[in-house]
Amino acid sequence: MEYRIEKDTIGEVQVPANVYWGAQTQRSIQNFDIARDINKMPKEIIKGFAYLKHAAALTNLDAGVLDKSKADLIGKVCQEILDGSLDDQFPLVVWQTGSGTQSNMNCNEVIAYRAHVLNGGSLTDKSKTLHPNDDVNKSQSSNDTFPTAMHIAAYKILIECTIPGIEKLRDTLAAKSKEFMNVVKIGRTHFMDATPLTVGQELSGYVSQLNHGLKAIRNTFDHLSELALGGTAVGTGINTPEGYSENVAKHIADLTGIPFITAENKFEALAAHDAIVEAHGALKTVAVSLMKIGNDIRMLSSGPRSGIGELSIPANEPGSSIMPGKVNPTQSEAITMVAAQVLGNDVAINIGGANGHFELNVFKPMMIFNFLHSARLIGDACVSFNDNCAVGLEPIYDNIKRQLNNSLMLVTALNTKIGYYKAAEIAQTAHERGASLKETAIDLGYVTAEEFDLWVRPEDMVGELPK
Amino acid sequence: MEYRIEKDTIGEVQVPANVYWGAQTQRSIQNFDIARDINKMPKEIIKGFAYLKHAAALTNLDAGVLDKSKADLIGKVCQEILDGSLDDQFPLVVWQTGSGTQSNMNCNEVIAYRAHVLNGGSLTDKSKTLHPNDDVNKSQSSNDTFPTAMHIAAYKILIECTIPGIEKLRDTLAAKSKEFMNVVKIGRTHFMDATPLTVGQELSGYVSQLNHGLKAIRNTFDHLSELALGGTAVGTGINTPEGYSENVAKHIADLTGIPFITAENKFEALAAHDAIVEAHGALKTVAVSLMKIGNDIRMLSSGPRSGIGELSIPANEPGSSIMPGKVNPTQSEAITMVAAQVLGNDVAINIGGANGHFELNVFKPMMIFNFLHSARLIGDACVSFNDNCAVGLEPIYDNIKRQLNNSLMLVTALNTKIGYYKAAEIAQTAHERGASLKETAIDLGYVTAEEFDLWVRPEDMVGELPK
Amino acid sequence: MEYRIEKDTIGEVQVPANVYWGAQTQRSIQNFDIARDINKMPKEIIKGFAYLKHAAALTNLDAGVLDKSKADLIGKVCQEILDGSLDDQFPLVVWQTGSGTQSNMNCNEVIAYRAHVLNGGSLTDKSKTLHPNDDVNKSQSSNDTFPTAMHIAAYKILIECTIPGIEKLRDTLAAKSKEFMNVVKIGRTHFMDATPLTVGQELSGYVSQLNHGLKAIRNTFDHLSELALGGTAVGTGINTPEGYSENVAKHIADLTGIPFITAENKFEALAAHDAIVEAHGALKTVAVSLMKIGNDIRMLSSGPRSGIGELSIPANEPGSSIMPGKVNPTQSEAITMVAAQVLGNDVAINIGGANGHFELNVFKPMMIFNFLHSARLIGDACVSFNDNCAVGLEPIYDNIKRQLNNSLMLVTALNTKIGYYKAAEIAQTAHERGASLKETAIDLGYVTAEEFDLWVRPEDMVGELPK
Amino acid sequence: MEYRIEKDTIGEVQVPANVYWGAQTQRSIQNFDIARDINKMPKEIIKGFAYLKHAAALTNLDAGVLDKSKADLIGKVCQEILDGSLDDQFPLVVWQTGSGTQSNMNCNEVIAYRAHVLNGGSLTDKSKTLHPNDDVNKSQSSNDTFPTAMHIAAYKILIECTIPGIEKLRDTLAAKSKEFMNVVKIGRTHFMDATPLTVGQELSGYVSQLNHGLKAIRNTFDHLSELALGGTAVGTGINTPEGYSENVAKHIADLTGIPFITAENKFEALAAHDAIVEAHGALKTVAVSLMKIGNDIRMLSSGPRSGIGELSIPANEPGSSIMPGKVNPTQSEAITMVAAQVLGNDVAINIGGANGHFELNVFKPMMIFNFLHSARLIGDACVSFNDNCAVGLEPIYDNIKRQLNNSLMLVTALNTKIGYYKAAEIAQTAHERGASLKETAIDLGYVTAEEFDLWVRPEDMVGELPK
Repeated sequence: MEYRIEKDTIGEVQVPANVYWGAQTQRSIQNFDIARDINKMPKEIIKGFAYLKHAAALTNLDAGVLDKSKADLIGKVCQEILDGSLDDQFPLVVWQTGSGTQSNMNCNEVIAYRAHVLNGGSLTDKSKTLHPNDDVNKSQSSNDTFPTAMHIAAYKILIECTIPGIEKLRDTLAAKSKEFMNVVKIGRTHFMDATPLTVGQELSGYVSQLNHGLKAIRNTFDHLSELALGGTAVGTGINTPEGYSENVAKHIADLTGIPFITAENKFEALAAHDAIVEAHGALKTVAVSLMKIGNDIRMLSSGPRSGIGELSIPANEPGSSIMPGKVNPTQSEAITMVAAQVLGNDVAINIGGANGHFELNVFKPMMIFNFLHSARLIGDACVSFNDNCAVGLEPIYDNIKRQLNNSLMLVTALNTKIGYYKAAEIAQTAHERGASLKETAIDLGYVTAEEFDLWVRPEDMVGELPK
Repeated sequence: MEYRIEKDTIGEVQVPANVYWGAQTQRSIQNFDIARDINKMPKEIIKGFAYLKHAAALTNLDAGVLDKSKADLIGKVCQEILDGSLDDQFPLVVWQTGSGTQSNMNCNEVIAYRAHVLNGGSLTDKSKTLHPNDDVNKSQSSNDTFPTAMHIAAYKILIECTIPGIEKLRDTLAAKSKEFMNVVKIGRTHFMDATPLTVGQELSGYVSQLNHGLKAIRNTFDHLSELALGGTAVGTGINTPEGYSENVAKHIADLTGIPFITAENKFEALAAHDAIVEAHGALKTVAVSLMKIGNDIRMLSSGPRSGIGELSIPANEPGSSIMPGKVNPTQSEAITMVAAQVLGNDVAINIGGANGHFELNVFKPMMIFNFLHSARLIGDACVSFNDNCAVGLEPIYDNIKRQLNNSLMLVTALNTKIGYYKAAEIAQTAHERGASLKETAIDLGYVTAEEFDLWVRPEDMVGELPK
Repeated sequence: MEYRIEKDTIGEVQVPANVYWGAQTQRSIQNFDIARDINKMPKEIIKGFAYLKHAAALTNLDAGVLDKSKADLIGKVCQEILDGSLDDQFPLVVWQTGSGTQSNMNCNEVIAYRAHVLNGGSLTDKSKTLHPNDDVNKSQSSNDTFPTAMHIAAYKILIECTIPGIEKLRDTLAAKSKEFMNVVKIGRTHFMDATPLTVGQELSGYVSQLNHGLKAIRNTFDHLSELALGGTAVGTGINTPEGYSENVAKHIADLTGIPFITAENKFEALAAHDAIVEAHGALKTVAVSLMKIGNDIRMLSSGPRSGIGELSIPANEPGSSIMPGKVNPTQSEAITMVAAQVLGNDVAINIGGANGHFELNVFKPMMIFNFLHSARLIGDACVSFNDNCAVGLEPIYDNIKRQLNNSLMLVTALNTKIGYYKAAEIAQTAHERGASLKETAIDLGYVTAEEFDLWVRPEDMVGELPK
Repeated sequence: MEYRIEKDTIGEVQVPANVYWGAQTQRSIQNFDIARDINKMPKEIIKGFAYLKHAAALTNLDAGVLDKSKADLIGKVCQEILDGSLDDQFPLVVWQTGSGTQSNMNCNEVIAYRAHVLNGGSLTDKSKTLHPNDDVNKSQSSNDTFPTAMHIAAYKILIECTIPGIEKLRDTLAAKSKEFMNVVKIGRTHFMDATPLTVGQELSGYVSQLNHGLKAIRNTFDHLSELALGGTAVGTGINTPEGYSENVAKHIADLTGIPFITAENKFEALAAHDAIVEAHGALKTVAVSLMKIGNDIRMLSSGPRSGIGELSIPANEPGSSIMPGKVNPTQSEAITMVAAQVLGNDVAINIGGANGHFELNVFKPMMIFNFLHSARLIGDACVSFNDNCAVGLEPIYDNIKRQLNNSLMLVTALNTKIGYYKAAEIAQTAHERGASLKETAIDLGYVTAEEFDLWVRPEDMVGELPK
């Protein structure tokens, strides 16, 4: 490979001749060879930087500390980054300095050098149109840019991937709930037969969980909308022009279409990432919901002959490499694995969030890496589960009916007629005898056949149904 | 010990002669001998039951399905439970049936039998004034009472212990922040010297964290205010009178003074405890904040001679059994241990929350045990930290001043004057030489003495201070 | 209450007149009012201190730095502590100084003052027979005594409670596995019907899990057997006589009957508690196993009519306060809740273990609190599950037979005869038709009736069985 | 793109014309579009499959159920997979069926079709030399192959990456410990000044932690060495020839050079992954150690002027984009972020491990994904930390000496001479006066100058040093 020489405050370093990055990016490649092939800094963070570098340039222009030509060039490269055409210019991994300084410098270098080339210059020119630190990073520090990129990336992925994914699944489940609202089936508590409910009612619980989860996510938007930018090195805003913080937040809001504001307290915004911890707390709540839903659906569809067998799910693929004809609840498996992953990611984020010291938290890249992972997984897995499983859910009416009529727990309807103790005796006796409730109830002399038929009606035991 | 014989649907069981509980409580004692001395069902849950049993009686009375005399008796015993005079009648442990059925029955039995005695009866009377199932548990199931008790207990402890504790600490830190707003000190990022800020600014970050944490907790109140009661066995509300759910929630709201409402979806309310998962997500966020604050304060007060030594904390106790004269940051240690515990509890809650099946989650006692533990720990630890540490925080002015003036990072003020690279050269050279910034800057020929004094002023580097 | 005045290096403090503790214990009561009623320092730690204080006295006697009369008195009080007669003299909570200094001083004070009274003195005597620091704590520091008490307590609870509990359950499951080794049943993978195995084979998997878990626990004994005592303040052993470390470990080994040795590296032993982290890693592995076993058994016993219904479990208590006659898998619920708790405790321990700084880890009380909690829960829950569930497990032969014969997955036996694809076609066709495998296979022309009967024999599909 | 048509038991599917995979792989691509760009099935698993498919072919050949020509072809393609030349033929993600069936089939298809092409055939030939199920998957199931690949991958990465990485760091720290064994410095407990020790002693604690961690990892090898292969569908070994299990394990041992054996109990081996849970328990213990070490080193190197400043670390890169001349402990930051990640991964693994049901655990891909991530991160991060930080650690002698001589905790040496209380008075008085210990001690009249010099000698307070 051919190289050129780049310099930073520490000295010279060889850089591949054609890349737009400079000395500091190159040093990071050399100093942090950790899981390089699997843990690149997430692309969402790079795009977050593109928004904020552009906004900072505009704000510096407004404040009269940056030329329009320079600001324009910065904006142009930022757009290229957003378009993805510079993707291969961001080679750094998550496991670098904990402030993300090196990814900030990677952005500064790429923007400066690419701008120089756009402006007709060459990468080997000694003097460049833009300086990575003095121009691109003007009025900024890694310490306020990286957390700003974190909030931009986190907010965006939530509204672009996570929430739409959850809503899609929620909508399907709501439609299915409505469709099957009158299909009476046996309930199960403690995995044991219980009083009846309808398939629609059962599904409505999942819908309610997801709705609460969506609300929990949105509850965290206020905190996520606060941007650190303007705090610079330690939160005091050293080296920023008057009014910078408010204006740069406004520019970011304009560029992203998200109602970002400047953080009321910049010291928190650099030294702690409680907003990420809090928002991931909502994601882990959704993960908990998805685990419940995924588990229920695989258990309700278990069988085909020796399980519960009340729901039919789509047969998307051969289920077994050895057992011919097997169909498995693979979407449930994927989404519950995703849920487990999110619950693990939550712990990593908590530990990172708890270990900021003094003016800076230096677990930033790890925290946002896990956050984006969870947000993406939930969004994608909901869509996959929706498209390949939920949309095809159908009751297996024969099984549902047989199990309902067989149930001993219909005896509960007799509590208010003959008391809990006699009702219990009927159920226990029927169980011992392998007999039906009705014949046992009559045999024990507690009800007549007419009373039984009048009082024990599954369809009357499911409460009022929505129209 | 003397015994009497009690019966349930399974058969007879010996019960200590003088206790108010009956057969089912006794069976649970015998069947679940797990960590008996350390993991009793939390008293907050028992009190939650007292509220809801009273409210259910009033609602049943309203609906005309329970006599006034019975309702009055139930109310009277519930008040005794709240007063604590029946504390020793609740011997069960957390590790019982996962629906909390046995604690529900413990309450039913104690209320029925104590009422009978209050009414002039004897514990050995064959027939009693009230029946545990048919009267005290009327229109209820363990499956909806236990989660209702969970929400009552959770909401109450948050507003009575957790939030007041956090607010107390927040207020002290806010006052200290204001008091020391003009004390300029060196900042630290990456544990390394950085540009200056004030003691008050540093503390303001903690205040902001706690304020955000308080908001995060309050964001979960909506979900916590939803009560399962009225769902009975599986969420359908079987065996409840018309309008029961709404009315019983209103009675509970009246009795507790908390704006409880009936859960919109009872299937979720029994089968999932996402509200607990979500609310504990807020508590873990606060734990993360407290870990940061506790760590910072112990590190800022480290020394007395070979540490950072910028804050003085109260000397509450001898610090060492071997090193005479030692004073340790013991309140920081207690509160960071509490934070670690809360982060562990969070995982237990997540696992419990994720593992509900079909119509019921059966990790209920474990989940609320951990929730109440965390809520209590945070509340108590904040008060302890406040009273025994935060109120006594004082800057150690000599150390602060010496370290500030010594700092190489004041060079950052020169960035906008001479550029990042020359400024870096000054700092590095001063570091190598063990010299001061000023003499090095002049020596390198980048600034004059006058310029240095004009440009490098720590008090100008901390941004605008609140009045 | 009446008080007496006690003094420490900080000054005077009022202490209840009749207690054996002194000034430092009293200060801790006042300074750490955190979850007082629920989180006392575990009694196992107090007993660990009793062993080590006695051993230290004997070692000091051997070294000629403590009188025999003093050593005898210390030994006498330590025995009283072990007997439990001084239980109410240890009022401190877990949430204190992170080195456990105050519990060490609590022990020092109680031993010194109780010894003085045993020796005929009075608690109000100005001068006492023994001095808490200079005699009882001689050659010790909190920093090496507390971690020593941790290892003593951890090792003891593992061999006295945890391991016997697991072994008891393991033995029962092994006996049941043997008893039911020839009961052929349908297998289930992905919750779906699969090829057959026997009830005994299924149970043998649990036995194997528990055996591996026991081995994992025992693998951690080497690290747990290393004692910090002799490291004193920072690991250097300052203020200890020659040969102290080795000798005191030998005395502790003698007193406890456990092969404790002195830690090879005392700096680790004070500053890190990886042995606790590692040993709890084994406990969490067992928790994972118990979750699997508890889940399987509740699912296999689900029904009675609309579940899987292959195992019968004891009916220990009425299952529902509303549904008469219900029997629930309550022991599975308790043990899976315990498993969730242990997995949460693991995270708390990890965080504590990761946050030691320099020469001392100050999350000691929290770490051992969680460790002892988990060890106790696993031991107790295994015994409870064993006695109240596992011993009564019985196959439900009718259901097992019906489900086996019904299974489509018996088709797998045809793979090696007619190939995977044709076998799959048979299974799928039978499923669609709701027909039996045999009639479908013949109908499709792939096998004759004779071939089917010869090739598809469930009892030949379970491999070789142990005799 | 051009396509060809492939078939499986479900029907036809379009596959890119030139790829070696078939219908089932293609279905998985379509059905599981979850985090596709970031969560590919780890390459270590694909290589694990290559070993086991080759071994299975050899075993089938030995058993006379597979032709030599077919076995040879399979072996040839497996070697290509190991060589990496077929890397782009494995497009599936982690989030698929929880048994890993689709990755097993991906391997079966690629091996069969690539073999056919190697044998001169074309991908569009109707009939192929090898059949994915009947030949490549012969005597196997996903249910036993995937866990076998898990153990191969886990064991290999531990011995090839994790352990060598830890050992490299351990060796450097051991050498540094020896080199600086006589450099006496102040100790710190509770972040506060304590009695002295040497730099070498302090570092020896880290070495001891890593040695214990290495032992903990190796303790799990026995369990990891047990292979599931031979259990096939549910653990019974259906459709395997006589002696298959033992022989295939022997072939895998031969091919990998690792002492693999067949699992004693195949039911556990399919239904639970306690070996992975247990082994990751060792990895999390190492993570805890690394967090301690990384934290200590960044705190000991803090400064340069207002921190602790006792260790010098290499200046690998400019530390700040705004503060010129800053050097940060970036390697500590990377390794502590890694530690946090591993602790999060541990929870994901625990949840997956706990949720196997009946005869199969279906969290397999998620579990091994996290395991391999952790193992890789620890190995890589240790090497990075070693090469870029540990090798360059140097004491800053001036600071060390100054802080040592200044310390009040040297007073501990007087405990055995004048008692704990008088020693405490000296330290407290010196602290209040800002005076030296010596002048205060003399002034208080407790010692003479000669006694002080004789008794208070830091170099005598560090215990016996290794030669």
